[in-house]
Amino acid sequence: MRYIITLLFSLSLFLTTHSQAPEEVIKSIFNDALTDNTAEEHLLYLCKNTKGRIPGSQEALHAVRYTMGALKEAGADTVWLQEVPVPHWKRGNELAILKSELGSIELTISALGLSVGTGPDGLEGNLMEVHRFEELKEMGEGEIEGKIIFFNRPVDNTMLNTFSGYGGAVNQRISGASEAAKYGAKAVIVRSPTQAMHDFVHTGVVRYQENIPEIPAVCVSPHDAEIMSRWLKKDKKSVLYLLSDCMNYPDTISYNVIGEIRGNEMPGEYITVGGHLDAWDISEGAHDDGGGCVQSIETIRLFTELGIKPRRSIRAVMFMNEEMTSTGGAVYADEAEKNGEIHYAALESDRGVLSPLGFGFGNADNERLEQLFSLEKYFRPYGIRYFARGGGGSDISPLGRFGALQIGYIPDTQRYFWFHHSANDTFEQVNIREMQLGSAAIASLIYLIDMYDL
Amino acid sequence: MRYIITLLFSLSLFLTTHSQAPEEVIKSIFNDALTDNTAEEHLLYLCKNTKGRIPGSQEALHAVRYTMGALKEAGADTVWLQEVPVPHWKRGNELAILKSELGSIELTISALGLSVGTGPDGLEGNLMEVHRFEELKEMGEGEIEGKIIFFNRPVDNTMLNTFSGYGGAVNQRISGASEAAKYGAKAVIVRSPTQAMHDFVHTGVVRYQENIPEIPAVCVSPHDAEIMSRWLKKDKKSVLYLLSDCMNYPDTISYNVIGEIRGNEMPGEYITVGGHLDAWDISEGAHDDGGGCVQSIETIRLFTELGIKPRRSIRAVMFMNEEMTSTGGAVYADEAEKNGEIHYAALESDRGVLSPLGFGFGNADNERLEQLFSLEKYFRPYGIRYFARGGGGSDISPLGRFGALQIGYIPDTQRYFWFHHSANDTFEQVNIREMQLGSAAIASLIYLIDMYDL
Repeated sequence: MRYIITLLFSLSLFLTTHSQAPEEVIKSIFNDALTDNTAEEHLLYLCKNTKGRIPGSQEALHAVRYTMGALKEAGADTVWLQEVPVPHWKRGNELAILKSELGSIELTISALGLSVGTGPDGLEGNLMEVHRFEELKEMGEGEIEGKIIFFNRPVDNTMLNTFSGYGGAVNQRISGASEAAKYGAKAVIVRSPTQAMHDFVHTGVVRYQENIPEIPAVCVSPHDAEIMSRWLKKDKKSVLYLLSDCMNYPDTISYNVIGEIRGNEMPGEYITVGGHLDAWDISEGAHDDGGGCVQSIETIRLFTELGIKPRRSIRAVMFMNEEMTSTGGAVYADEAEKNGEIHYAALESDRGVLSPLGFGFGNADNERLEQLFSLEKYFRPYGIRYFARGGGGSDISPLGRFGALQIGYIPDTQRYFWFHHSANDTFEQVNIREMQLGSAAIASLIYLIDMYDL
Repeated sequence: MRYIITLLFSLSLFLTTHSQAPEEVIKSIFNDALTDNTAEEHLLYLCKNTKGRIPGSQEALHAVRYTMGALKEAGADTVWLQEVPVPHWKRGNELAILKSELGSIELTISALGLSVGTGPDGLEGNLMEVHRFEELKEMGEGEIEGKIIFFNRPVDNTMLNTFSGYGGAVNQRISGASEAAKYGAKAVIVRSPTQAMHDFVHTGVVRYQENIPEIPAVCVSPHDAEIMSRWLKKDKKSVLYLLSDCMNYPDTISYNVIGEIRGNEMPGEYITVGGHLDAWDISEGAHDDGGGCVQSIETIRLFTELGIKPRRSIRAVMFMNEEMTSTGGAVYADEAEKNGEIHYAALESDRGVLSPLGFGFGNADNERLEQLFSLEKYFRPYGIRYFARGGGGSDISPLGRFGALQIGYIPDTQRYFWFHHSANDTFEQVNIREMQLGSAAIASLIYLIDMYDL
């Protein structure tokens, strides 16, 4: 009897989703996402209980264990881990004091990820303000040797696309240390790349070039960068004392977390939806990218809850180590290759869990793009109208080599860089409704792409 | 000599704005708005120094004085006040305790604006939960007499338009007291109308019907409304002790603040851009509507700063008493009528200073609407694409009787009701860039409408 009831129930679910118009399925996805609080609970947990989850940390492993449970609870058929080699870097004591004839003040700083440290005694040097790498070349070793270079090019706030604005300043953080070290600088201090004028520091990774001395690199809050610049104008002999006792340890192991709903018709074809589980140690990683992970788990939960049986296998992936060396995405693609998996499409949510605008599509020919753009009609009732060429994410990009469609979830990012990589990226800065709308948009798109072979 | 220099300077400004393509003028408006911090300073001042500015308050008069100065500083040719009769209502001590067989707990409540008080001793009564006004009729006096009615219909979170969701619940707050008093209720406690599930109360005005006893009306936080409902299910005899010692005093006087740039060609025709200066006493009135006032001041500042000489007279108006009895808008229209002013168009920003979507237009025939919709092309580079029929605002609606075009500024309001009418509506909840984008959009639209006679 129980068997027959189960059979009837399964059949009714099957008929439900296969007989419903796509508009109705999408409406049911939005209705559920907007009234369910599971995602909010998950985000709160990740923010408050796994804060500090940089790749090699215990906190990251805590987040791995938590999201395994969340994926099972959401209804994934199978949940498993993939070993990922990750850097193991630890922040130490930090202090920066600007000393000039005007007096001395403490600056708000943060070591850049993977930076070498100053040692426990710190270091001291004359400051030199620079806006463009070309200036380093112009000055040369004669002027730079032994100095601390202060990179102070701000983000251009008149650029409408905030990621483009960020892109115009972030090379100072990524490459500034090596560029300055070429000419003998002993350390760099970089203005935080953000449109905001506030006291938060925005950290991020520094990449050292081979065969160039590795020097300590920190970022400073935009407010303090302004003060530094003014003081330096008054007293060009200003000195910075810098302590950043961080350390790089040997690489260690962490994990990608994967939850799968097996496909009904083409189980050997995969659609991946993911975010990254690691986050900067100074932040709760709410927008970047706990929220993207939670939205991926929501795809599994919504499909399960609403009885949507995907034709292809759907995987929610919590990628590890996006922020430092992106090994999680590389491992996932390597495993896919080893197992001969067919990756049909992959979506990444890593631009904040803000009000949805739409999606960007990459790695598709014009015909496929046309078909994808035609999906906009299903999203128009929800105010989601941006369907454009170009998109993806750093974790899913290695899947591009198998021809997988690349999809980037695009929210309204006007306020994103107020949070990004800073202590201001907290649970409280997420509006749950905006996150829910994004979850529903993502799950709806995955459903449509799978259903209509797009 | 000085005269000639002034003349040449004026001429060059005239040539500058008249020779520039509209795209260039709009770009310069956005560039200035996105890099200037005057608006941020004004909003910070209003939020932190004039908090509590309900219509009849000293704080409102403080805001009147401050914005007069701000308008002069922004470059208005003339700044003046209009006397506005306003209610004078004061909140008193407040306390609500739910008592049942489960125990007793204190609830987070707030008197509704213009509500009568309970007196200093408070009152006590059995609670009865109601979702629809029809239920009151069904129950009748027999069941309602002497009870405290608990209106607990939530906002429907599945409605995409948050204002529509709010509209589906707010009649409990506006009319619930009189509806319940018809059947002998002694007080009402209303679930705060919001999509949020949190501990903030969202107040607002109550309107008493004539010839119905006026009974005390308060709102309760959504969290506490949930608790009340659960406890009432366990113990239908639950009792509420309610203290809300607020008072209505005789009407008093406050002011609209008006700043004008006189038109170059048609000074007797007016375009008004406004927000309301009063705000709920429990909130800082950042989104509602200090931000809308600041955006209106920005129109004056941007026109002045960029040398845009309007053909018609442009007025920024800080309307008084939108929240209680909307006398500010009525006085402004009455004065206009008395002075025989021609009101060409009026725009109101009163939906939060959030990321801009576009504008809604009212009081225009199809031909004018077509022309207005064609302006969308100028805003597309800024991601502003919503140009639709239907819009305005309660302060500018009385101008409709002179045929003035009605324009509502429409931002993305998905998170608006997390703040609206609550202590959560603070400066910190405003993203300055989102407000700046709105200011630029508003000033650009006013410029285009004036320039092209739309």
